[in-house]
Order: sequence, then C-alpha cells, then structure tokens
Amino acid sequence: MPTYKKVRMGMVGGGIGSFIGAVHRMAAALDGKIELVCGAFSSDPEKSLESGRSLGLDDDRIYATYEEMITKEQLLPEEKRMELLSVVTPNHVHFGPVKMGVQADFHVICDKPLCFDLQQTYELQALIENSDIVFALTHNYTGYPMVKQAKHMVASGKIGTIRKVVTEYAQGWLTHPIEKDGQKQASWRTDPNKSGIAGAIGDIGTHAENLSQYITGLEIHSMCADISALVEGRALDDDGNILLRYNNGARGILYASQISAGEENNLKIRVYGDKGSLEWSQMEPNTLIVKWMDQPTQYYRTGSHDLCQHALVHSRLPSGHPEGYIEAFANIYRNVAIAIREGGKNNEVETGLYDFPGIKEGVKGMEFIYHAIQSGKQDNKWMSCFTKS
Amino acid sequence: MPTYKKVRMGMVGGGIGSFIGAVHRMAAALDGKIELVCGAFSSDPEKSLESGRSLGLDDDRIYATYEEMITKEQLLPEEKRMELLSVVTPNHVHFGPVKMGVQADFHVICDKPLCFDLQQTYELQALIENSDIVFALTHNYTGYPMVKQAKHMVASGKIGTIRKVVTEYAQGWLTHPIEKDGQKQASWRTDPNKSGIAGAIGDIGTHAENLSQYITGLEIHSMCADISALVEGRALDDDGNILLRYNNGARGILYASQISAGEENNLKIRVYGDKGSLEWSQMEPNTLIVKWMDQPTQYYRTGSHDLCQHALVHSRLPSGHPEGYIEAFANIYRNVAIAIREGGKNNEVETGLYDFPGIKEGVKGMEFIYHAIQSGKQDNKWMSCFTKS
Amino acid sequence: MPTYKKVRMGMVGGGIGSFIGAVHRMAAALDGKIELVCGAFSSDPEKSLESGRSLGLDDDRIYATYEEMITKEQLLPEEKRMELLSVVTPNHVHFGPVKMGVQADFHVICDKPLCFDLQQTYELQALIENSDIVFALTHNYTGYPMVKQAKHMVASGKIGTIRKVVTEYAQGWLTHPIEKDGQKQASWRTDPNKSGIAGAIGDIGTHAENLSQYITGLEIHSMCADISALVEGRALDDDGNILLRYNNGARGILYASQISAGEENNLKIRVYGDKGSLEWSQMEPNTLIVKWMDQPTQYYRTGSHDLCQHALVHSRLPSGHPEGYIEAFANIYRNVAIAIREGGKNNEVETGLYDFPGIKEGVKGMEFIYHAIQSGKQDNKWMSCFTKS
Amino acid sequence: MPTYKKVRMGMVGGGIGSFIGAVHRMAAALDGKIELVCGAFSSDPEKSLESGRSLGLDDDRIYATYEEMITKEQLLPEEKRMELLSVVTPNHVHFGPVKMGVQADFHVICDKPLCFDLQQTYELQALIENSDIVFALTHNYTGYPMVKQAKHMVASGKIGTIRKVVTEYAQGWLTHPIEKDGQKQASWRTDPNKSGIAGAIGDIGTHAENLSQYITGLEIHSMCADISALVEGRALDDDGNILLRYNNGARGILYASQISAGEENNLKIRVYGDKGSLEWSQMEPNTLIVKWMDQPTQYYRTGSHDLCQHALVHSRLPSGHPEGYIEAFANIYRNVAIAIREGGKNNEVETGLYDFPGIKEGVKGMEFIYHAIQSGKQDNKWMSCFTKS
Repeated sequence: MPTYKKVRMGMVGGGIGSFIGAVHRMAAALDGKIELVCGAFSSDPEKSLESGRSLGLDDDRIYATYEEMITKEQLLPEEKRMELLSVVTPNHVHFGPVKMGVQADFHVICDKPLCFDLQQTYELQALIENSDIVFALTHNYTGYPMVKQAKHMVASGKIGTIRKVVTEYAQGWLTHPIEKDGQKQASWRTDPNKSGIAGAIGDIGTHAENLSQYITGLEIHSMCADISALVEGRALDDDGNILLRYNNGARGILYASQISAGEENNLKIRVYGDKGSLEWSQMEPNTLIVKWMDQPTQYYRTGSHDLCQHALVHSRLPSGHPEGYIEAFANIYRNVAIAIREGGKNNEVETGLYDFPGIKEGVKGMEFIYHAIQSGKQDNKWMSCFTKS
Repeated sequence: MPTYKKVRMGMVGGGIGSFIGAVHRMAAALDGKIELVCGAFSSDPEKSLESGRSLGLDDDRIYATYEEMITKEQLLPEEKRMELLSVVTPNHVHFGPVKMGVQADFHVICDKPLCFDLQQTYELQALIENSDIVFALTHNYTGYPMVKQAKHMVASGKIGTIRKVVTEYAQGWLTHPIEKDGQKQASWRTDPNKSGIAGAIGDIGTHAENLSQYITGLEIHSMCADISALVEGRALDDDGNILLRYNNGARGILYASQISAGEENNLKIRVYGDKGSLEWSQMEPNTLIVKWMDQPTQYYRTGSHDLCQHALVHSRLPSGHPEGYIEAFANIYRNVAIAIREGGKNNEVETGLYDFPGIKEGVKGMEFIYHAIQSGKQDNKWMSCFTKS
Repeated sequence: MPTYKKVRMGMVGGGIGSFIGAVHRMAAALDGKIELVCGAFSSDPEKSLESGRSLGLDDDRIYATYEEMITKEQLLPEEKRMELLSVVTPNHVHFGPVKMGVQADFHVICDKPLCFDLQQTYELQALIENSDIVFALTHNYTGYPMVKQAKHMVASGKIGTIRKVVTEYAQGWLTHPIEKDGQKQASWRTDPNKSGIAGAIGDIGTHAENLSQYITGLEIHSMCADISALVEGRALDDDGNILLRYNNGARGILYASQISAGEENNLKIRVYGDKGSLEWSQMEPNTLIVKWMDQPTQYYRTGSHDLCQHALVHSRLPSGHPEGYIEAFANIYRNVAIAIREGGKNNEVETGLYDFPGIKEGVKGMEFIYHAIQSGKQDNKWMSCFTKS
Repeated sequence: MPTYKKVRMGMVGGGIGSFIGAVHRMAAALDGKIELVCGAFSSDPEKSLESGRSLGLDDDRIYATYEEMITKEQLLPEEKRMELLSVVTPNHVHFGPVKMGVQADFHVICDKPLCFDLQQTYELQALIENSDIVFALTHNYTGYPMVKQAKHMVASGKIGTIRKVVTEYAQGWLTHPIEKDGQKQASWRTDPNKSGIAGAIGDIGTHAENLSQYITGLEIHSMCADISALVEGRALDDDGNILLRYNNGARGILYASQISAGEENNLKIRVYGDKGSLEWSQMEPNTLIVKWMDQPTQYYRTGSHDLCQHALVHSRLPSGHPEGYIEAFANIYRNVAIAIREGGKNNEVETGLYDFPGIKEGVKGMEFIYHAIQSGKQDNKWMSCFTKS
C-alpha cells in the first residue's frame, strides 16, 4: 500500500464514559493512517477538556463545542488543521455538526442512523451530494471481510437468483427498564427526544436493513411491520418484526429486538438463491457458510487464499487469527483515509475495492425507519418503501 | 417400567418406497412394545402384498384396502386382532381410515396434518372426542427430550413471562420444480388434490406451529402471513412467513420454507422470556441452550442427570450418546403403547409424564393452515385465529 | 432390500438395570430383521426370569444360565431355535458363552473387548476362524455413516498419504470414586477380576484404537504409553495417553480418559493426510468435516446425496433428520442379519458394503490393551505392537 | 484509566512484507498509549528507509541497523527519545538487540521464543533480572480475556485439583515443502541457522507450553516426546507430540504440528480438575466453555458482566462484539505501557491485574524447546524438565 501522511481527525462527542466514541478512536488508530488531533468531546466543557487530556491532546485543540472546533480549526494552517470530522454523538446531535462540517468543507464520518428525521435527512443529502467532501456513515458490519465475500458471491451469481432473505438482529440488554435507573446508553436510546421516532428499529434495525441490501444488492420494495414496546412504559419500540419484499420479488423477514433476553449482539443473515445460500453471523464473523444443492456445505474463512479480492483487502491476518468488531469498524476508517488521500469522494459501494457506506445508505436507513414505524402504526398494512421517488 | 404385552399394530400406507411409513415402523419397533401384525400398505394390492411380505407378515394379514383390513381384523379373535391403526398415507387419505378406525373402536396414530380440510377436521374431532380410543398425531418433534425440557422450564417460570417466540422451519429440497420430474414425495406434497390448500405451510409449518405452542403453553391469537409459491408454476405455497401474536400478547415470527436452498431439515425455535431464553434446533436435538440475563449461557443435554423428569423418561441413553429423529418419533409410539395398556385415552399434554399430541393438536394445526392461507390471500391482513369458538 | 425371515436371537446378560443389554436389544429391533426369542439375562435365575418376562418372552425360553440356554435351544426344531447368540455380559463372562456358542454352531455377536486376556483371545480366534459362523464384535462407532464415509475417502486417496492421526476418547463419569458407592457400571469396570488388566484403556481405549485403524486402514506399529489411575485407590487405569506410530510411519496420539470431568462421551478423531484432513466427533456424528489445503472446509452430512455408497446404505433418513448412537449400533446388527441370511461369514471390513467388526478386530483390541498396559508399566518405553507375528 | 503521555517506541525488524512486525504495530497503536517514533526495519538499509517512510516516520528516525538506532536514540533529548524497543526479527536476531537495548536501559518487548539457544537465554536472564527495565515477551495468546478468566477460575479452585491438561496447536501451512519455493515465513522458520534447534516446537509449541502453564499455574515436570520432520528433507521438526507430567502429578498431552493439512491456527486447551473442566480455543476466543459434574455446561463470554476483573480489564467491548488476535496482542502492549508509566518492572503474572509474560516465561520456553528436542532424539525417553535448578 502506498505511503500516506496520516489524516488529521477531530471528534464530536465520545467523551469519557462513552461507548461508541472509544470504538471510533480505536478503529481510526488501528492502521496508522489517521491521527486524532482535536475534539469537542462533550456538551460539558469541563468534561470535554478532561476527555481530551486523557487522550493526550494539547489543551488548545480541545474545544467546548463543535461550533468552536469547526470555526477555529478552519483558521489553522493547512498542514496542522483537522481534515476529517468524526461525529459520534447521539442521533439528535448528528445534524448540526455534520451540516456545519460539510459546509466548512471538512470530510465527515458520522455514526448511524444519519440523523433525527426525514427533513434533516434530505437536507443533508442535498448538501453532501453537492459537495466535494468524503462522507461515510458507520454501518460498520459491512466492513467485515466475510460480508464483502458474501456480497461478491451474490453479485457474481454463485448462488443464483435471490428468493429469500432472513435478517435478524437480537439483543437482550433492554429486557428490563434499565433506562429508569439512569443507565446512560439506555437513557438516550429509549428517549424520543434524542433518538427520534424509533428505538430498536433505528438503533439496530437499520444495521440489519443496510446489511441485507449491501449483501444482496437488492432494495426493499415494501414491508409490513409489527412494532412494539414490550417493556411497560417504554416510549420507543424495543422489538420490531417485519415482512419484506425486495425489488426483484424476493421475500424477506427482518427483525430487530432489544428485549431478547440473553442475546448479546446477534446480527445474522441468511440469503437464499436458487442455486445455493449464504449464512453469516456477526458473533462468528470470520466464517461465511455457503450451502449448496448438490455438494457439501462450505465454510469460507477470513484470511484464506480462496477468498475474493474484496474480502482479502479487508483482513489483516492469515486465517485462523480472529479479526473482530474493531477491525471491521477500522475498515471504514481505513477506506475513508484512502478516499481522502486519493482525492475521491465516491465510495463506490457497488464496484470499489475500498468501499464504505455513504449518504445514499444514510438516506435509505432513515426512510426504512420511517416506513417501519408507519407500517407498525397503521395496523401493519403493507407499505411501499419509496418515499421521495 | 412394568411389563406389557406388545400392542398389535396395523398400518395403512407405507408401502415399499415410502419415506414416512418406514419411519413409523422403526419408531414402533424400537422399544419392543409394539408389533406390526397387519397392513394395507398401498392402494395397489400387488404392491401392498409385496410390501407386507418384505416386512415378514403372513399373507392373510396383508390387505388390499384399509376397509378390508378394518373389517376383517374386527372378526379376528381378540388376542390376535390388531389393536392400533397407524395411518401413514398422504393427507387426502387420512380422513377415511381414521374415521373408519375410530368407529371400529381401534386406537389410531395418524401422520400430520390431521386431514384435508376443516370440514373433515371437525367431523373427526367430534368422533374422537366422543370415543374411548387413544388417538395420536405424529407431531414427532415434540417427542425430543430437550423439547420436553424446554416446555417444562417455561411452565415452571424459569425464563419468566414469554415475550417473543421465533420459530423457523427451513428446507431446501423443493428449490427446483422436482415434482415435474415425478419425484414421489414432491409430487403429492405440491398437489392440491392430495395435500389440501397448503404446501409448505401444511407439511412443515404445522410442525413449527405445534412446537411453538407446545413449548410455550401459549396459543396463537392472530397472524399476518406472506404466503408464496416461489418456484414458477407450483400450485401450492413453498414459502410462508408469518407475524404472530400469542394469547398473552407475546410477539412471534414463524416461517416455513421448502425453497431455502441448501437447508436440510432446519426446524429451530427461540423463546424469549423476561428472565431468560431458550433455543433449540432439531438438527442438534440433544442440546437445549438456555441464556440468562446475569449468568453464563447453559447447555442442557439429553440424558444428563440435571434434567427434569419429563425429559429423562424420554431418553434411552446416558448423555453424550446421541439420540435422534427416530428416537423422538418412537417416544410417541411408546407413550401411545403405555396409554393403551394403562387404559387411558388422555394424553395429558399439559401435565402427563408420557404425553403425546392428540386430536386437540390436530384441530389446531388444521385451523393454522386455514388462517395462514387466508391471511396470505387477503393482502396479508391480520386475522384472528379462532375459527369455531 | 430383499425379504428375509427375521433372525432369531438369544441374549446372554442384559438383565433389568443393565445399560448395554438394552442398547443391544434396541439395535436388534430397529430394522425389523431380528427378533429376540430367548435369553439368560442374569446369573441370578430369578432376575433372569423377571427380565425375560418384562421383554415379553415365554417362560420356557427364559433360562437360568447360558449353558442351559445353548444346550436346550440346540434341541429345539430348527425353525424355532435361536440362530444368533448376543453376549452382553461384563468382560470376564465373554469367553464362556462365546466359546460354547461357537462350538454349538450358533452365530455370535459379542460386546467389546473380546474377552479377558490374551490366552482366551487366541483360543477364541482359532475357534472362530475355523468355524462357519458369523461373528461380530460391537465396535459400534464404526457403524456410523460418516465413519464409513471417512474410511472410504481415505481409501480412495482423497486426503493423500496419512501423516498424523489424533484420536481422543474423553469421559468424566469416573471422576469421583463412585465404585465405592456401589454404582453398578463403575464397580465392574474398575474391578480387575471382571474387566481384566485394563480399565479405561479396555473400556473405551479399544474403541479409539479400532476407530483409528478402521478409518485410516493403517495398523498401529508401536506405542509409548502413560497409563494412570488418577483417582486414589482405584485398581485399574482411568486415564491413558499414548504416542503411536502407524505402519506407514504416520504419527499418532491416542488417549482414553474417564476422569475428564464434565465430558460426556467425547470420542473424536482427526486424520491428516498430505492433501487434506478429516475430523469426526461422536457427539455430532452426522457431520464429517473435511479440510483442504486450497479450498474451503466442507461439511459432509449423513443422508446427503453426495456421500459414498457405503455411507448411504448405513443411514435410514434424509439429511437433517439426526441419526444417533442406536442407529449406528443397529447397523452392526442389521449387517449381521444380512450376513446370516446370505450365508456369508466374512464381514469384509475392507471391501464389503455391509461390513462389521469381527474376530480380527477383537484380537487387535486385546493386543492393544496388552501393549498399552505393558508400555505404561515399563517406564513408558516404546513397544512394538505385534505380539504373535 | 489515568492519563499517560504516549510511550515512544522504536522497532527492530518488521519491514515491508513482514507478518509479525505489522501485528506488533497494530497492537501498539490500538489503545492510543504508544506511538512509533523510530525503527531499524530491515538488515537492508534501503528497505529499512522505505519501510519507515511508509509508516510516516521522518528519515532521521529511520536507521540502518539496530546498533545505530540504540546508539543514536540515547543521544536524543529525553522527551523525544525512544523509551521502548520492540524486537520483531527472526529468532537468531533477538539476542543482539535485546542485550544492547537492556544495557542501554531501554524497556524491551521481544517476540517469542526468547532467543536462539540456552546460552543466550541465561545471559539475557541475568541481564534483565539485574536491570530496572520492563521486559515483555509476546506470548500473545495469554492476552485473551477468556484466558485470563480461565487462569483465575483455576486459581480460585473452581474446577478443583488439576488432573489432566490437553494442549494442542495445529497448523497446516507447512504441509508442503513451501520453503523450497522461497516462501519467506517458511524459509527462516525451517532453517536451523535462523530458528535454532526447533521448528514447530519452537514456533508454536512454546505458545502451547506457555498457555498451559499460564492457565493452570502448574509447571511441566517431565516429558516424553516424539519429534518428527514429516516433510521429506525438512531440516527442523514440523510435528511434535509430547506426553507430560506437571509438578502436581497431573498428566498432560501437548502437541504442535505444522503439517496438519487444512488447519489454520488451531491452538486449543482443555484443563480437567476434579470438580469441573475448562475448554478454550483460540479460533473462537471469546468463549470459555466450563463443564461441570452436576450441572449444565456453561459458556462464559468476553465482555460479559459475570467475568472476573482480570478478564474484564482486558476487553474493550460489550459481549457479542467479537475481539480477536490483535486485541489480545494489544493487551500486552497496553500493559507494558502501564508498567512503564507506573514505574513498575514486574509484570506480576501470578497476581497483577495488568500482567504480561516476561523473562521468566522466556526462559521456560527455551528450556521447553531444549528438553523436547532432546527427548525426541533419545528414543523418546522421559526427561526431567529442570535444566538449571
């Protein structure tokens, strides 16, 4: 791989005690292509300062607000200035920093879902599509090598025409109403003022939605949803079960649940074609199970020589040396660094070797949330899934 | 176990080349409590004769039709006469022999689904409920020891209030239109004149439906189904995906598919309570995975000392000595033999130690077929699932 | 399969409370080719009578001793007389009934190991090899379809020249000195007067030894053993670890342990060739894992169309319908029935489609016991494994 | 965790094309506690320069030799100067840089095995034990959270007195003589001039040896080895099988193989106590299987709340978010950074929360190599394993 100067990154959110902020930093650090140079880590200036210091930043690069950070960084000399803005705040604080960052011509990586509602969505879409920046959304599960392998086996017709897709995402951590005890993650994720109209559907359902379309290359055409808050008094859904039809006529099931007691982070997909099928599970991410009509089931493995090029460039170790969640997440950061240094803004999800999810995937996710919640409210009627077009 | 004289069994169907007939015979033979004494193995008298001889029967106990068998066996001396009628024909030939058998006061074991349509269903129900015979339907998957364990862990409140149930039954053997090539199993199972209104939903969906209600002790209250024939030109469904609500408000997903390329016989259930969850898979039937909120996942195993009495009496070997499909099937036959010899007609699914599925489960299965197909036809509207009541 | 009259079987041992006797009876019953007609089920005549009655036998076919049974059955008319003697007693009561049975010209199935010591071994070998009877030893694990598949994949060169074989057999049931509490199985299996010179090595080590040679087609050439009784005061070994060399130079590890706490019946083998490798585990017996140098690992499955003929004729169900321990055990009985009815005495382990273990395997097992125990006693010296030749 | 200034690291070896050098760099970078400031990446000065530039280093911190690096870095101002020397060269180039680094008072992390032979070993041992530096050896597998969990479950007596330990390390990448085709990794690892007296035994056997003693807290007391080069013409062993006895009398099997065709990086350990047992496999590293005598098997999982403190501080994510090889490796680097910043030189493997393998483990590994190879040469005699004492 060619030599790049490290990309200089600033972070919004991710202060001490945050979960996903630390993940973004490890992902950015892993490959030595990005360095954290500044941040506005908390809406509390004291906490932002403390957080930045613990990360080894100088005080003059630790900011009280993202507005201050973007404004002041723009004034720094080019070789010192932040180039890439990483937004790792709760959903209701995505729109502001992303918009301001794009307008200030910074590249942006944003956590999912894209933002708070459809209005924000289309505004960001227009802004980003008309800019020259690199924009990435961290649908990190598509960063796994075996997900790449799955996508390219489908694309090359190995398993034939897709007929059925089953995508599950089961967690159990919201089985009890822990938001009432002030658990930080639970509090904002079950709060409509911070998360938007959806709970589990937004938080993890969009990952399932993104994964199923990424691997199959299909689009969800219509859906019928049963959306519930099964914990008494919870303001947002914690369980959603959806019947889907894809644009080629394939049938689908997709579910997202955070009250599946005892489940850890069980994202799993099965894709059935008329020649064979694929099965991938996030909790055993280095194996892609491929089942055939007339020959034994095969286990493709991360790092093996027999994988496609897309899978190979997203792993770092020989097979049998497990790569995990952080490595998959890091693939998005690594690819963004490549896109920035090579001057491309286009992630080329369909064809690029170093692809990553961008604004198109962000819009789809927000529309998915909208349709699922709407379908759930309207007596589970089937709904078309094309809002704008 | 006390000493019983072997129960004398006659069989309808199950001639040479049949799949399920041979299974019934092995299940009946395994525990040495039942002996096959006669049969009408085929609608073709020549084939019936040949089949019976290959099973070691004397010619005078091999019959050309079930009518002949029932009529002539009634005339035999009591100690020689068939006591139990096993009906293993395709769906459209269940009603006749079951009705005649019950009326002739024979005990009956019938393959599932119960019969061809709801009219037959309610007629058989009335007949059987007003008789003194033992009647069993071979929903064989509930015969597995770890399914018993699961049922009784739920019943005793171990995993708390049930909130969600995911039941899958995926097969791939109808991925291609093999019925057009005359494959025997495929031909009748995709033929509305032999199977009734449903394909996959009847053939395997009813197993899933039965299993989910057996383990949870809940009833399906309403459903919304997407029912499809994904192989072009197929007359009956080969894929059905259903959203469910159970009578306690629990949400459910249930699907049955025979076009899931590469899948063998993948019946799997996950039951989520508010304290923990259960996971069981037919293809690894000797393990029940129990997940908890606050302690490590446990693997309960067939034959272990730590199981409940219901599980223990349905296994034959110490743990680590795999028991399979035939053993689970045999549990139904063994329990029927006990019921016959002990004079009970009631299988006591809810409380009995030696329970087995009976007419109640048969009726539920037929109503499930009806509602699923209806829901699928009516633009996937939600339907109540209580037809008669 | 052609029609056979059922083979008439008598049993020595296997009274009420016995483990392996019940297994033999289920194995014999499963396929409807053998019927139990008589037995001497216990050295206690009362218990023999009670056992026989519980099995539905008439009193005149229940005997007080095997001597009585063999003597009296010989006097019965041919069409009624026992044809096959099944010996399921503890090791020290194999020699007597087998010898008398062979001399009386009955076919014999005997539980393993063959007998008590090498002297008995060679006497039985001479007797059986000079007779016309069918003789089988229940090394039941070689009856599994995927073991047949493994054997024939090796034989056909699929995985190349064998270089290494790792065979493990771990159980935990003797972790505590339960023989002191009178546990029946533990008592005789740890008693030198009933088991012979070996404990775990004889009870389960011989299964491992048999399996490794059956699959690889190789013979153990020399060994170096570490043999221990790890539970204080135990008179026979409960753990044995052995380095092996096979006759083609391949290296091996073989171990048998009954103090591996928490293990159920964990017999597992891995065979490494220079082109690929095989892995099979008794506790997941329907899968044969085949690993390759240059392509993804494959999972061969019982009942699949892609198996060799040897595997296919030893399964009864389509893939995905689990077959277990009893089915594998039944394959030996079924094959013996075929051999008896077709008049062959030769099991043709190397080439026959319906093979089963016989006297040759019995002798090898007894020699293995002898060498392992000797090696363990002599400071773990390497020993040649060819006693007689 | 308190705030530390990043530890400044220099690297010896790890130039472009190296496998393990890149792993060390990712491990060092992951947690943001260490920064690479200089390196002598290759014995070829051109390649060293090119490698350093690709890593974003300034030319004046890229050196032609380790001697140059150590000498020149000593002259730099303290706040700029390298503090930690990472040695990632082949075995025969460990001794030189480690010795010079220690003598120059730099902290050192060295890849395993410690060095080339026993003479070097004891010289380094004396040097390091008499210094104040932090020294770590990258037996990275002990960095996995579930290995920590296993160690502390054993130490706290959960599974009772250890009776048996089975440690396997199977790889297949040297199945064919790829060193003859110039494959870089194969070439030096099979070359006695670069690797020392052992091949597989040194390369991976020492990992198995270290893991078994780390988890059990026992020491290997004696051994009997069968050591082979199974690929014709190979100068060093590629397969070694060893019987062990530990210092408390426990029996053991340990094997290391690089000709196990189809195996990836299959390091696995099973530890049997008299109350229960543990099973851990590197290829599914986030699960620790715990088997009991009287209750169901448990699956402990990385990141779960129910783990011990030692396991928890070595994982970065909630359970269900897989952590892998790099994360485990990074735990050693992270802990070394803590030791350096907190001024401790002692890794406190037995008691410390942030432990890592050090010189003691390095000496044990070299002695293990010596004894295994000696035992293999002397007709597999049992040997005591205490060389010096």
